[in-house]
Amino acid sequence: MVMPNTLLEQSMNHRVTLLLKDGRVLEGKLVGFDDYMNMVLEDTEETTQERVRRLGKVILRGNNVVSIAPK
Amino acid sequence: MVMPNTLLEQSMNHRVTLLLKDGRVLEGKLVGFDDYMNMVLEDTEETTQERVRRLGKVILRGNNVVSIAPK
Amino acid sequence: MVMPNTLLEQSMNHRVTLLLKDGRVLEGKLVGFDDYMNMVLEDTEETTQERVRRLGKVILRGNNVVSIAPK
Amino acid sequence: MVMPNTLLEQSMNHRVTLLLKDGRVLEGKLVGFDDYMNMVLEDTEETTQERVRRLGKVILRGNNVVSIAPK
Amino acid sequence: MVMPNTLLEQSMNHRVTLLLKDGRVLEGKLVGFDDYMNMVLEDTEETTQERVRRLGKVILRGNNVVSIAPK
Amino acid sequence: MVMPNTLLEQSMNHRVTLLLKDGRVLEGKLVGFDDYMNMVLEDTEETTQERVRRLGKVILRGNNVVSIAPK
Amino acid sequence: MVMPNTLLEQSMNHRVTLLLKDGRVLEGKLVGFDDYMNMVLEDTEETTQERVRRLGKVILRGNNVVSIAPK
Repeated sequence: MVMPNTLLEQSMNHRVTLLLKDGRVLEGKLVGFDDYMNMVLEDTEETTQERVRRLGKVILRGNNVVSIAPK
Repeated sequence: MVMPNTLLEQSMNHRVTLLLKDGRVLEGKLVGFDDYMNMVLEDTEETTQERVRRLGKVILRGNNVVSIAPK
Repeated sequence: MVMPNTLLEQSMNHRVTLLLKDGRVLEGKLVGFDDYMNMVLEDTEETTQERVRRLGKVILRGNNVVSIAPK
Repeated sequence: MVMPNTLLEQSMNHRVTLLLKDGRVLEGKLVGFDDYMNMVLEDTEETTQERVRRLGKVILRGNNVVSIAPK
Repeated sequence: MVMPNTLLEQSMNHRVTLLLKDGRVLEGKLVGFDDYMNMVLEDTEETTQERVRRLGKVILRGNNVVSIAPK
Repeated sequence: MVMPNTLLEQSMNHRVTLLLKDGRVLEGKLVGFDDYMNMVLEDTEETTQERVRRLGKVILRGNNVVSIAPK
Repeated sequence: MVMPNTLLEQSMNHRVTLLLKDGRVLEGKLVGFDDYMNMVLEDTEETTQERVRRLGKVILRGNNVVSIAPK
């Protein structure tokens, strides 16, 4: 059994891809998270069909996250 | 009586099909879940009318899941 | 007084029709449910105007269900 | 003071009109409800501009209900 | 300090105008409410641009209410 | 550190501008609020591109509020 | 591990960029927040494609925030 929280811990300091409820896709290095799956990403990039936008360090609210894929 | 949680336990290490609130359909091997029905899938694939996208290992937030169908 | 939970218990092993928030209509044999009205259906079919899709055994998240009609 | 719950109790075995969040209007005999305002209706009919659809006995999830009007 | 609950108590047996999340506007005599701001209105009228619809006695679910204006 | 609640207390009896989830903008004198950020405004005005509508005394449900700007 | 709350504390008195659920982007100096991630910003500016709007001091409700990027 791989608990979701355990996989998040294993993904610390690795890059992850987040899909948000509004359809945005973010990629960044996971450097922290809390019990509500709020997360802190570093070197975050938002990739859309047109371009890549660099966001740097970002706090993401857990209730806007649909899926988290460690790379 | 087959409790939803019991069926999830029985589906461990089997492939399941998830329907998400945003209409996306994911298929992958269920390797973990928690009390909020957050799930961990392996060898995940997203199938749309146009194509299949390989997502690998993914954490899904339970509150975005509409239905779970074990294969 | 017919409590909603009592009617669910009486509907066990009978076919029920579910209306989901996204407008989908599912029909299947109710074989389990929990306190959050998460449900397990067997021999589930999704009926749309165009066709019937067989879904087999399905876990439905209670917070996506609008109504449940025992047959 | 007429508490919402008291009015629901007084409406038991009477017909009520429900407005749901998705805009649907249901009418049926209220035969039960619980603390979450989940309700059981009998002889339920859904009335749209085009037609009346008979739904029989139905469990309604309280969090989809906008208003309840006893007849 | 006028607490929201205090103003509701002071509005008892007076007419209030409710704005609901779906944009509907209701006016009626407030005859009861509970801790979730579920309300009971009497002589309720729904006013749209085209017409006035008489709804009589209505239970409103608090989580669908945006604002309450005592008259 | 200016806690959100502290700023609300300091804004008592001053005019504030509220942005609601449905995009409406209200301005009024804040005369009360509770732990859920339900608020009571007096001399409330709703300003749209076309006109100003006087709403008088209004209870606002906190879960519909996006932002509060003291004047 | 950088907990989301710790990063918020470190961002105190620095400018942050907020993305809200309705797509709006706000930038301001973070001067306070609470356990629900309600925040207080000073010298807040809303930037859209057409213009910059000065909002001054603003309380933001945490459940409308998608992401927070310290500058």
